[in-house]
Amino acid sequence: MLAAQYIGNKNFNIVEGQALKPGAGEVRLNVGYVGICGTDMHIYHGVMDQRVNPPATIGHEISGVVAELGDGVTGFSIGDKVVVRPLDWCGECPTCNAGYTHICQNLKFMGIDSPGAFQNSWTVKSRTLHKLPANVDLQQGALIEPLSVACHDIRRSRLQAGEKVVVLGGGPIGQLVAAVAKSVGAEVLVSEPNESRRAFATEKLGVSVVNPIDTDLAKFVDEWTETKGADVVFEVSGVKPAIDAMTQIAGRRGRIVMVAIHAQAPEIDLFQFFWKELELLGARVYEAADFDWAVELISSGKIDVRPFISSVNELKDIGKAFAGMDNNPTGMKALVSCGAE
Amino acid sequence: MLAAQYIGNKNFNIVEGQALKPGAGEVRLNVGYVGICGTDMHIYHGVMDQRVNPPATIGHEISGVVAELGDGVTGFSIGDKVVVRPLDWCGECPTCNAGYTHICQNLKFMGIDSPGAFQNSWTVKSRTLHKLPANVDLQQGALIEPLSVACHDIRRSRLQAGEKVVVLGGGPIGQLVAAVAKSVGAEVLVSEPNESRRAFATEKLGVSVVNPIDTDLAKFVDEWTETKGADVVFEVSGVKPAIDAMTQIAGRRGRIVMVAIHAQAPEIDLFQFFWKELELLGARVYEAADFDWAVELISSGKIDVRPFISSVNELKDIGKAFAGMDNNPTGMKALVSCGAE
Ligand SMILES: [Zn+2]
Ligand SMILES: [Zn+2]
Ligand SMILES: [Zn+2]
Ligand SMILES: [Zn+2]
Repeated sequence: MLAAQYIGNKNFNIVEGQALKPGAGEVRLNVGYVGICGTDMHIYHGVMDQRVNPPATIGHEISGVVAELGDGVTGFSIGDKVVVRPLDWCGECPTCNAGYTHICQNLKFMGIDSPGAFQNSWTVKSRTLHKLPANVDLQQGALIEPLSVACHDIRRSRLQAGEKVVVLGGGPIGQLVAAVAKSVGAEVLVSEPNESRRAFATEKLGVSVVNPIDTDLAKFVDEWTETKGADVVFEVSGVKPAIDAMTQIAGRRGRIVMVAIHAQAPEIDLFQFFWKELELLGARVYEAADFDWAVELISSGKIDVRPFISSVNELKDIGKAFAGMDNNPTGMKALVSCGAE
Repeated sequence: MLAAQYIGNKNFNIVEGQALKPGAGEVRLNVGYVGICGTDMHIYHGVMDQRVNPPATIGHEISGVVAELGDGVTGFSIGDKVVVRPLDWCGECPTCNAGYTHICQNLKFMGIDSPGAFQNSWTVKSRTLHKLPANVDLQQGALIEPLSVACHDIRRSRLQAGEKVVVLGGGPIGQLVAAVAKSVGAEVLVSEPNESRRAFATEKLGVSVVNPIDTDLAKFVDEWTETKGADVVFEVSGVKPAIDAMTQIAGRRGRIVMVAIHAQAPEIDLFQFFWKELELLGARVYEAADFDWAVELISSGKIDVRPFISSVNELKDIGKAFAGMDNNPTGMKALVSCGAE
């Protein structure tokens, strides 16, 4: 079988690999499609070389077909279409014991801290698998991991139907957050400087948009909400102006979900937290319930993820797939086809 | 009747005032005791002159006795011992309609934005009153407003029995937060540089203390919680090192309640919010339920507020009462006696 190996500095090798026989509790998958994540782009740019230790097979947004079952695996059969929740938790730390395995104190992220899915065959623990219904194909399945991120963000926000939501940043995750928020019955406004991303939000998702560069966002939201302010704000952009905006546009008792990763510690207007009794909620990856919800959203037709797929390349052309996403704000999700259909 | 008037620059005049006849829905109180709040000290120092517009009668931590009832007032009788929840909300804005009158978009704080309680007689809306049970005296009653602040902070934190709590800052509010947290059944650690405040926490409240100047707080909490981190952190100090500490010492899914007012926007380690799925909760004043809870905590003997009373002065000596609190870290609560017993 073939495996792509990231070897550093925007380069991949395609090598002949060994399909791993599944051990006890494990399942070998024939890989279907693997999406390229923002984190994969970071790895591609070399900024995570210390963590991934190249040569390394990466990739974690995966759909596949069950090919081989290890000892003791129940609930899955050869030929089942599945997706992988790429988290490897210890099951023993206080956080795992409290039920929050997704933020386990010893968490390993599969495809970063351990080998990933850009290969024909991937062997994983069966506890990471979620089955796909018959009406969800493997291309749609590869979108379930990022959609689960959005589902987790929405669950953290305790969003209710009829609430007004502002999404700061219209990249792939911001758009998926907007889609899930809309599916819940919220009124959604996406703030995004890039014109083609705004067009995606209006045309593909049917939500409202605003350009924060040429519009006073605080004033706009004040009018949109008739002075009440936003019920929920999702910060998905990672830029400083959004940090300033989020505390301005959130209404009293508003919830702000921190989806973006801000590596630097930005200045935050804590006075607004006091004055309006705001809430800031950190959100990281997803839990099993988020995957279940994401599968249901696609299966029921409530969310159509197909417009998010901007390219599909063969595994041998993985370099082309990554290069095509590089500095491409209009591309939402590039898929790599790894064999299984 | 006599009224104290703040006239600017740490000075008060005692003037002959006019007891106001209660209008419809209002009640005139004979004032018992009035506590001096941190906000009153700010006013005393002249930094809020624009808002209070001297000469002004301030004071909002008050107990009293019902002296006269306006038209339509029910539920109160002459002679009832009461305390005042000093909030004047509009009842018409979206926030009031949502039930959060304490953060009303047009909120007036009585004793700051309108005349206060440092006088023999105070006339207020009956909707601001809470009755004192027979076993709570008027000196204890004057502590109910600050205790209600602490009750509100604890309710915002969703604190559960058995959880581990760190209170950053051992001033009057920090100590009251510690006391309420302990009454809920939490394990409480107060971090406070001042030795006499640490002594107060151990001797009067029976909670644990740490000096963050000579101890590595993050390491200390890590050991105290066996690597889990604090379940809840209350930031009551208003200093920058506490902002840095709060994200370090909170455990995964930890809640941080922002009680202190940080006028400058400090740098905050947002990465920790993501990594540990932290929650930051702004807390402002109190709701009716907080006053009810504070009354119950004192009446039931679960919290003894008498050790917090560090001085009692007559109204004519209000200047002495304020001067005694100035830069006095050991003084918890100075009361001014305004006549009613
Ligand atoms: Zn990803
Ligand atoms: Zn764990
Ligand atoms: Zn006060
Ligand atoms: Zn209001």
